Amino acid sequence: MAGSTYGKLFSITTWGESHGAGIGVVVDGCPAGLPLDTADIQAYLNRRKPGQSRYATQRKEPDTVALLSGVFEGKTTGTPISLAVYNKDHHSLDYRDIASYYRPGHADYTFDEKYGFRDYRGGGRSSGRETIGRVAAGAIAAKLLHELGIELHAYATAIGPVQIDRAAFDLSESLRNAVGMPDARAAKAAQAHLEQCMKQQDSCGGIIECTITGMPAGIGEPVFDKLDANLAKAMLSIGSVKGFEIGDGFAAAAACGSENNDAFTIKDGAVTKRTNHAGGTLGGISDGSPVVFRVAVKPTPSISRAQATVDKAGHKIDVSIKGRHDPIIVPRAIVVVETMAAITVLDLLLGNMSARLDRIRDFYR
Amino acid sequence: MAGSTYGKLFSITTWGESHGAGIGVVVDGCPAGLPLDTADIQAYLNRRKPGQSRYATQRKEPDTVALLSGVFEGKTTGTPISLAVYNKDHHSLDYRDIASYYRPGHADYTFDEKYGFRDYRGGGRSSGRETIGRVAAGAIAAKLLHELGIELHAYATAIGPVQIDRAAFDLSESLRNAVGMPDARAAKAAQAHLEQCMKQQDSCGGIIECTITGMPAGIGEPVFDKLDANLAKAMLSIGSVKGFEIGDGFAAAAACGSENNDAFTIKDGAVTKRTNHAGGTLGGISDGSPVVFRVAVKPTPSISRAQATVDKAGHKIDVSIKGRHDPIIVPRAIVVVETMAAITVLDLLLGNMSARLDRIRDFYR
Amino acid sequence: MAGSTYGKLFSITTWGESHGAGIGVVVDGCPAGLPLDTADIQAYLNRRKPGQSRYATQRKEPDTVALLSGVFEGKTTGTPISLAVYNKDHHSLDYRDIASYYRPGHADYTFDEKYGFRDYRGGGRSSGRETIGRVAAGAIAAKLLHELGIELHAYATAIGPVQIDRAAFDLSESLRNAVGMPDARAAKAAQAHLEQCMKQQDSCGGIIECTITGMPAGIGEPVFDKLDANLAKAMLSIGSVKGFEIGDGFAAAAACGSENNDAFTIKDGAVTKRTNHAGGTLGGISDGSPVVFRVAVKPTPSISRAQATVDKAGHKIDVSIKGRHDPIIVPRAIVVVETMAAITVLDLLLGNMSARLDRIRDFYR
Amino acid sequence: MAGSTYGKLFSITTWGESHGAGIGVVVDGCPAGLPLDTADIQAYLNRRKPGQSRYATQRKEPDTVALLSGVFEGKTTGTPISLAVYNKDHHSLDYRDIASYYRPGHADYTFDEKYGFRDYRGGGRSSGRETIGRVAAGAIAAKLLHELGIELHAYATAIGPVQIDRAAFDLSESLRNAVGMPDARAAKAAQAHLEQCMKQQDSCGGIIECTITGMPAGIGEPVFDKLDANLAKAMLSIGSVKGFEIGDGFAAAAACGSENNDAFTIKDGAVTKRTNHAGGTLGGISDGSPVVFRVAVKPTPSISRAQATVDKAGHKIDVSIKGRHDPIIVPRAIVVVETMAAITVLDLLLGNMSARLDRIRDFYR
Repeated sequence: MAGSTYGKLFSITTWGESHGAGIGVVVDGCPAGLPLDTADIQAYLNRRKPGQSRYATQRKEPDTVALLSGVFEGKTTGTPISLAVYNKDHHSLDYRDIASYYRPGHADYTFDEKYGFRDYRGGGRSSGRETIGRVAAGAIAAKLLHELGIELHAYATAIGPVQIDRAAFDLSESLRNAVGMPDARAAKAAQAHLEQCMKQQDSCGGIIECTITGMPAGIGEPVFDKLDANLAKAMLSIGSVKGFEIGDGFAAAAACGSENNDAFTIKDGAVTKRTNHAGGTLGGISDGSPVVFRVAVKPTPSISRAQATVDKAGHKIDVSIKGRHDPIIVPRAIVVVETMAAITVLDLLLGNMSARLDRIRDFYR
Repeated sequence: MAGSTYGKLFSITTWGESHGAGIGVVVDGCPAGLPLDTADIQAYLNRRKPGQSRYATQRKEPDTVALLSGVFEGKTTGTPISLAVYNKDHHSLDYRDIASYYRPGHADYTFDEKYGFRDYRGGGRSSGRETIGRVAAGAIAAKLLHELGIELHAYATAIGPVQIDRAAFDLSESLRNAVGMPDARAAKAAQAHLEQCMKQQDSCGGIIECTITGMPAGIGEPVFDKLDANLAKAMLSIGSVKGFEIGDGFAAAAACGSENNDAFTIKDGAVTKRTNHAGGTLGGISDGSPVVFRVAVKPTPSISRAQATVDKAGHKIDVSIKGRHDPIIVPRAIVVVETMAAITVLDLLLGNMSARLDRIRDFYR
Repeated sequence: MAGSTYGKLFSITTWGESHGAGIGVVVDGCPAGLPLDTADIQAYLNRRKPGQSRYATQRKEPDTVALLSGVFEGKTTGTPISLAVYNKDHHSLDYRDIASYYRPGHADYTFDEKYGFRDYRGGGRSSGRETIGRVAAGAIAAKLLHELGIELHAYATAIGPVQIDRAAFDLSESLRNAVGMPDARAAKAAQAHLEQCMKQQDSCGGIIECTITGMPAGIGEPVFDKLDANLAKAMLSIGSVKGFEIGDGFAAAAACGSENNDAFTIKDGAVTKRTNHAGGTLGGISDGSPVVFRVAVKPTPSISRAQATVDKAGHKIDVSIKGRHDPIIVPRAIVVVETMAAITVLDLLLGNMSARLDRIRDFYR
Repeated sequence: MAGSTYGKLFSITTWGESHGAGIGVVVDGCPAGLPLDTADIQAYLNRRKPGQSRYATQRKEPDTVALLSGVFEGKTTGTPISLAVYNKDHHSLDYRDIASYYRPGHADYTFDEKYGFRDYRGGGRSSGRETIGRVAAGAIAAKLLHELGIELHAYATAIGPVQIDRAAFDLSESLRNAVGMPDARAAKAAQAHLEQCMKQQDSCGGIIECTITGMPAGIGEPVFDKLDANLAKAMLSIGSVKGFEIGDGFAAAAACGSENNDAFTIKDGAVTKRTNHAGGTLGGISDGSPVVFRVAVKPTPSISRAQATVDKAGHKIDVSIKGRHDPIIVPRAIVVVETMAAITVLDLLLGNMSARLDRIRDFYR
């Protein structure tokens, strides 16, 4: 069943395998008239590309994007934007041995069960490289949202057991350290923890938070296409994400109503909320406050430490995953979270344009 | 934008407001030949209907389902199944005062911003009664999955600060106590906590866990329609749900890869996992282990304690929500979680039938 | 597979069988603020209801619509509008004999092949009564389009071999005669032809044309969701429709480019076309001219004349269809064509609102 | 709004402009295990590529396909298949003059109205080259259908006023002559007619018929996703197609029921129809007979003969379209019709797998 398309009005379709000819995306439904060139997209891809720190795989992949359609004279035309990143650093030989067994924590076994066989090279379609298409598409969504005054920022709030200190929160710091934490002290502790993991041939998970500011109220549909429901799907669709929460999230489950409700008030003549336990949505529709959500990212499943598993012939074996793997997924996943959120918000923002007859009448006057 | 339809092959479209003529659902894509009568559906609706314990609203709503199409001679025909619950206990007058202000924690403000006005009676479309359609549809999905050997069970693992003791886990107990907890002692403590909340005119949240057994491997699509991604959307689309996690979820973020990976092994000649930190999916595709996920439910926003808010004219006011509200949403939401999961699993299970040419060839031979 | 939903933004989901509890539709995505009551919808349903002339079935079905959700204080709320027509005149006994054999020209055999059995009462889901949901939903779409200055008119241009004289075209006449022809003389000849058919226990087909005026340019998407492609689908989805053509249609196939191209010109300062061979679309997008298309409707398959067929046991038999059948489908199908066109146009018109960044920026300013 | 995706389970998303970097398609939902290489696809692309006869543009475009994903070790993997044809023969300069005016019969004006500007080079997205993506995707669908015993054949039944003689019908002949007619004598007359058109700097339309054999009964959904409805949409979505009819089509409108109904009979122990006026569908579901439909194709709008139009500044002008245009679209569109039909049939065939519980139970046993 087709499952590589996401979004209804601003719709992305991704393709590609880790060690095939390339990875790409078709962005359909992008409004016409957005100034766009490859540099806009490359800037986002560079944030996820490997080899940027000790804590990312040392594979050399320039991940240079090619823009194949949908832009004319520097602006989007309203027709599909096709983007491709051709693969360079194949090294398929490294992976030939994994063809015969099932790596713990990977999708090898489930692909075999579903499809009867799999492209085993570097995880094939289930590789983290699949997110290149999402990031490229989301860069466009983010640029368009920026034109409307909406900004998205994702960053790490936890690396393994190390959490940021909210009192020390400094967004700009998250762009300066190798782990994307908006707190220099936590970032340092996180790096020490990572060194420990690496020494033990192990890996580490973490939590990414995303804040969206400048949101107009009214974005999201009341029942199934709630803003938070679509964000949850977008986030859990990212490989290795195991949890999603918006606003106070799981903490809200332990709170009282009187603590968790956000009182409305008036500020500068406008309705606003005194607090934001809700994380910017009420009834699945944006309320004008910042949208704030978090995702849990599991530790990289590829570790060089020995693990028990089975091979395709049904023998129990021990394996030690070779290759150049990230000891932690979080830093490179930050931009994936940010861009998937941008796509989700833009899609619902476009859909909201048809919510009211009076505004449709104005539009077509 | 249309947003009241969920599911691609087994697709449900819900309609209705809390105090309108009724609430209903159209189930499209239900396979033909499933024995079905209203009792199958009523059994599930009875699990969510009000007035069943001290901890649920004392409104009297029989919530009797009418089956209007799609069943002939006791079996589903393959054509849309239309189900309706006509509203009985309107009491719209109770709600007239809330027309003029925005209740904290509710969707009053966001509906007004989106649509220009709202059906204020009992929350209109954003009422918890909207879930009647989901439960009725999900009862059908659950029955069909049962025919295939797949069973779903949801229960509460936390009520406010009270958590179950995993060592005392007893699924059958969850059907005996008023809070749906699979641990009699925790249930008792939870009820004491609820009495305290009620005395303080306050409300309380909690956590619901759902376990799905009998899952074949291979269900879910690799990229956007991952089993976990669709479950996350389904869950966050339920009003008051603020978080979702699968398997170890947020705890996985703090773990090492060596702890979090599930080793494969061979049992009775079949590949299986020694542990289930993953919660039954790898790469978004079911791996044959039980699927286990949790959702965080916020405290009921309607509390009779005084709260600050604003009215539509822009004045700051204090309100105290009258009416017969649940002090906790969790017990009645358990069946909503279970049925939305059933719909999600069935939809992907049907979609998986076209994954392999060899099986398609067998099918059409 | 779910196939009872049509439309992406203005989306309708129909349900119901000829002799079940009723027929209905859920309209999702209707913009908020449209004044609407049941009379708006009933007026359209009355145009398709039986018993209005000698040339329609004499069954007595009042087809009274109930409005179950989505309207509050006389206006649409933006949430799903549920409409139902409960069946009155069941007479299921009349149909019991058809359970055992396959009526020529009907879907009896194909339903059995697809689903393993069928609701044989009055054709079940494949009955013409299924169009009640479409007409009810389309009445809303037509009312909304009317608010934007867009009007739809359908009428018969041929009944069997009798065609209208274009020189005598009088739209208002089509509402006065029993066959819906905009030419009194042709209508008279058509009725004579129908009398002949009835005498011979036979039935008759015809052609319906629909004209849409007041269309803004720009409606329709360039590739698959072309305005004409979606109209074609909408029309062929109506039972008994066997053909669709837009503008000159099949006649264009025999023309030269110099004849078929419509020259652009300037009129009152605006770009317009001198002719309209294209039927109001270029590249699948409305060009501001009237949209004009035609559909071919087959003769009613139920005829009382004896026909050869087979029964479910595999015996060759002769049958003569009893019951009160329309000798021609066209007059009652006119409003179905008109309303399905309204739904199609509205859906694309709403989608067009997100085509250009400058207009999105204006919208969200 | 996104409108470049077609199909629900076997889903294609096309991209590209006539004179951009290339044209391509992502095929999502292709079942795993189909042997596939570029030659399979190239064979179909070669049937539509230019320069193959006097009656096609003399532009030199090799239209070589690149297969970028979704195939591993010679078989489809179940994940998206990305196909691209990079453009070679740009000559954008030829088109610069058309930037300033609206060509009659083209989408120049409607694109400008919709998007505010357009990629004017060779028609941009509205060029006939857009069909490359469809043909490439459809080649895969056709190959898969062939594995199931389903064959599709399209051919021309009319070129301008010249029609084939049904008595002389010879399918193999259609592959031998330059106009794709299954009747050598008609083909010769058609070519004479085309020479005349070319001499007069004019162009010509025609009719394409497609026959699908080996269809199992039961394909198609009863209401909106009828097999014929989806075929109609698929066909009208092809640029220059102005009409669609299935079976007897418009001729059925003039027939009596007794003539148009197909009697059922028993042949070799199986239910079959004595005639096929219906064209292989009843109630929108395949009945096991060959599916037969026709499409009307308008004359090429680009003609070198002078035509009246307007420029963007609002002046009336005369234009004569330069460049290397096909005097007739039909011969190259034949394979487009065939492949779009393949995609449509395959999509519904996959969807039909979930129609019956008994067969689902067998599948998951």
